[in-house]
Amino acid sequence: MNNVRTLLLSLVLLGPFTNITLAQDVFLNKRASWMAKAESYRPKLTVTPKLPIQLVDVVIDSNAFQDVKAVAKSNISEFYKMQFSKPKSVILDFGEHITGTIKFALSTTGPADSPARLKFTYGEIPADLYYSLDTLKPTITRAWIQDEEVYVDVLPNTIRLPRRHSFRYLKIELLYSVGFTFNFSEVSCAAVSSAGLNKFPDTEQMPSLFKEINKASRNTLKECMQTVLEDGPKRDQRIWIGDFRLQALANYYSFKNFDIVKRGFYLFAATVAKSGLLYGTVFEKPIVRPQEHHPIDYCLLYNTSLLDYYEQSHDLETLEDLWELAKKQVEIVAPHVDEKGLIVLAPTWWSFVDWNASLDKQVSMQGLVISTFESTLKIAKLLKKEHELPKLEGLITKMRKGAKENYLDSQVKLFVSGKDHQVSVASQVWMILGGVVTPNEGRLLLKKINSTSSIKPVSPYMYHYYVEALIKCKMYSEARDFIAKYWGGMIKKGADTFWEVYDPENEFLSPYNSFLLNSYCHAWSCTPVYFLKKYEKELNLKTH
Amino acid sequence: MNNVRTLLLSLVLLGPFTNITLAQDVFLNKRASWMAKAESYRPKLTVTPKLPIQLVDVVIDSNAFQDVKAVAKSNISEFYKMQFSKPKSVILDFGEHITGTIKFALSTTGPADSPARLKFTYGEIPADLYYSLDTLKPTITRAWIQDEEVYVDVLPNTIRLPRRHSFRYLKIELLYSVGFTFNFSEVSCAAVSSAGLNKFPDTEQMPSLFKEINKASRNTLKECMQTVLEDGPKRDQRIWIGDFRLQALANYYSFKNFDIVKRGFYLFAATVAKSGLLYGTVFEKPIVRPQEHHPIDYCLLYNTSLLDYYEQSHDLETLEDLWELAKKQVEIVAPHVDEKGLIVLAPTWWSFVDWNASLDKQVSMQGLVISTFESTLKIAKLLKKEHELPKLEGLITKMRKGAKENYLDSQVKLFVSGKDHQVSVASQVWMILGGVVTPNEGRLLLKKINSTSSIKPVSPYMYHYYVEALIKCKMYSEARDFIAKYWGGMIKKGADTFWEVYDPENEFLSPYNSFLLNSYCHAWSCTPVYFLKKYEKELNLKTH
Repeated sequence: MNNVRTLLLSLVLLGPFTNITLAQDVFLNKRASWMAKAESYRPKLTVTPKLPIQLVDVVIDSNAFQDVKAVAKSNISEFYKMQFSKPKSVILDFGEHITGTIKFALSTTGPADSPARLKFTYGEIPADLYYSLDTLKPTITRAWIQDEEVYVDVLPNTIRLPRRHSFRYLKIELLYSVGFTFNFSEVSCAAVSSAGLNKFPDTEQMPSLFKEINKASRNTLKECMQTVLEDGPKRDQRIWIGDFRLQALANYYSFKNFDIVKRGFYLFAATVAKSGLLYGTVFEKPIVRPQEHHPIDYCLLYNTSLLDYYEQSHDLETLEDLWELAKKQVEIVAPHVDEKGLIVLAPTWWSFVDWNASLDKQVSMQGLVISTFESTLKIAKLLKKEHELPKLEGLITKMRKGAKENYLDSQVKLFVSGKDHQVSVASQVWMILGGVVTPNEGRLLLKKINSTSSIKPVSPYMYHYYVEALIKCKMYSEARDFIAKYWGGMIKKGADTFWEVYDPENEFLSPYNSFLLNSYCHAWSCTPVYFLKKYEKELNLKTH
Repeated sequence: MNNVRTLLLSLVLLGPFTNITLAQDVFLNKRASWMAKAESYRPKLTVTPKLPIQLVDVVIDSNAFQDVKAVAKSNISEFYKMQFSKPKSVILDFGEHITGTIKFALSTTGPADSPARLKFTYGEIPADLYYSLDTLKPTITRAWIQDEEVYVDVLPNTIRLPRRHSFRYLKIELLYSVGFTFNFSEVSCAAVSSAGLNKFPDTEQMPSLFKEINKASRNTLKECMQTVLEDGPKRDQRIWIGDFRLQALANYYSFKNFDIVKRGFYLFAATVAKSGLLYGTVFEKPIVRPQEHHPIDYCLLYNTSLLDYYEQSHDLETLEDLWELAKKQVEIVAPHVDEKGLIVLAPTWWSFVDWNASLDKQVSMQGLVISTFESTLKIAKLLKKEHELPKLEGLITKMRKGAKENYLDSQVKLFVSGKDHQVSVASQVWMILGGVVTPNEGRLLLKKINSTSSIKPVSPYMYHYYVEALIKCKMYSEARDFIAKYWGGMIKKGADTFWEVYDPENEFLSPYNSFLLNSYCHAWSCTPVYFLKKYEKELNLKTH
């Protein structure tokens, strides 16, 4: 490494890059071209009109997900006949999860002599329309809750509400009595997505549960495919590297839209920090800009995602164009590996790994860093540039050795993390994915962890990596059965898109202290379609 | 009267005209031309940008109107510096009553990672921002309350809210915490009115209270001058004949805009019932149409308003064009005068007179009918068409005689109304305005009623006619003093526009069971400027 780089890397250790006014902008000469490429790959949104199919009630049922279910109440034609004058509430069911804007038309017989105030509440799941948030204290803003009050000043009228919402159910309330009567002559949704057509139909022989899992996977991805690969159409409606990698994988085995993936790579690239370290998320509006924090696992998974992309597209040109950026991630993180081969995160970084607040992430991050370093090395070899990271191969070896020596508990025969020697699924998974253990050793870890009390994943995101680990260890029947149990569990609980958070033991779990703020159509949950298609033969679905 | 007319008049007694499919449309051949004229006189709105001048608090003060006053809190520059992140509420004071749409700009330093939900509450008076409506049960829809919730999905942003509001004070609340900070870099109002410039400046010698009364009168009228002469910019935002007549009078002595008056005459004409009887109110949106009810005093005051208009404009052509309509009102009402000369209202009609729910309206309506018949006779004479209503002069005489014989209580020497012989100010006023008594006799009635327990007006509308009666009886000092006391009373309580309802004895009075639904800038209260200018000399303002 040259002197300038050494200087910069030592500055990294001092504090946030953005506060270091001395720091030069490493990719200054690349930003404009990367941004132009991001824009050139912006996908077109397809608009599909959707109509409600029935009226439903939401009722308490202790057998239902979150104790609430939607029950059919009447044919939708009844709704259009309903007269509104006193406060009244109806719930429309659109029959499927959709993302779009609502249009409604109100008819009157005589003149309406006042405004009418309506409330619209959008529900991805029945519980959204049953529980009140008022007793909970969410840790993120309640403004994510999808409800809005609307005045209609003049009737009759046809109104297109401007906000995009993510929902299957729509509650409409007349909040106050009015001195006239009206009815709805239309309620429709202009549903939007950039997904296009699925290019990987299910095989006929596939068992119906897996077909349903595939369908929900594709629906989840489709709903999140907007002008970027959003993490969720309800929340946060933006691109995050961690979600992006998993979406891209599912996309390769469904809509196979390379442009939206390239758009993502270039948006992250164009908004990289001056130091050259990626930010974890990028906003499109009002201008393209990053949220200035560094979830270091996401920064590194960018490289793995580049490798995934090349394996699908064989697009060496993009790989070449982004190589310096990928390399930079390694160059920034590598100096944080200590003499024992263990990664020590800088104080201004953070790591995500999973939404489980109890999880100690030390071991997981060790494995993730090794795994992504390995991806980067593969890219270097594809580009014949391994000489640009001459010490990387040795570092990987050192880190694997360090991990095994320091984190493998010889007594419990599992990797343990942190000063309390925490046993978690995530630690074993990332040791396997980091190649710290052989597939044979990994198989033992995964079997052992299943029969040991441990910290378990709570997000489909972490469970994706669990399935990756099962497959790496050739535990195909376990992988297949786990997909059927976990994602199939959501299907059995009524999901037609997969959820941000799902802990079968605690349906009300929320990283935001309110399950009503969870997203119930979340990109990082959409990967079963990737597994079920890519490993169709190994998972032996036909005869299962 | 011919047979068809007799048939129609007898049908009138059977029920609402609109239910009588047999009824022919009396003015079918006129409607299109009247509507075209109404549209040709549509005024242009002038847009004036208005900025808030300070931050205020609203606080309880038992000496203040409705026990609430606004107190200065800080300079407006403090507002633009305020950082919003947690729930927070501020009240902006625009320094004057305005009618228009709000535009606001939100600035952030970093990216905003969620929507922000804001609430805007518009107050014509401080009480609008202090009390909650939730404990009251208004008899008209709560949707008239001027508050709205708004999501800002992307920040920074500049947003023009689409709804027009009527206010001086604007409360802005951030409803829920957000994970970033923002500030308002702009809040402005595009104030709208079609009034134009005042053409009758106050004389310098006028005492300051009367100058303030004139100013508030003109402000009230200006705010109500939109694309029609609205009754109130907060509520009902439409043209009513009763308000229209008084606005037109004030207009002749302020903005002197004849077109907007003609537009009103033609809107009422174009939407007249098939029977030929006027409706009391007309909506402009979504299409021009009447509200189908007949406040019969309003129908008849249309004729008086036509006479007022001619006296100001000498526009005989419009009078000619609308003569058949004016005549028709009399032809429909006249057959309801019984053999004693007393008007007996048809069951499908109603009469307004005043908002006082206790008022017995029999005597008031007798006087009003005579007065408006007399106006119609004057129009007939101007047009040399008295032969078309050959019996009208005799009918007026008969009605005056009937009123005096049946309603004057020889004991109390006041007119009494209804089976309970109710004594009210309104009865005396309308007997005077109907010419049932001479000005000398009227003077005695007005003096007597002041020293007698009686039903009093509660609206500036009815008090307008009280002042008209005082002036007719040449009680100029009483008229002047009453204006100073009643309208000046509102000024002293903080009004810069005059209110829909004002009872000095009960500041919380409301015809809607909630003073928060009252309008505090109401057209029918704007007539002091008419009295003070037209009768400037008689009222002897200069030396007062």
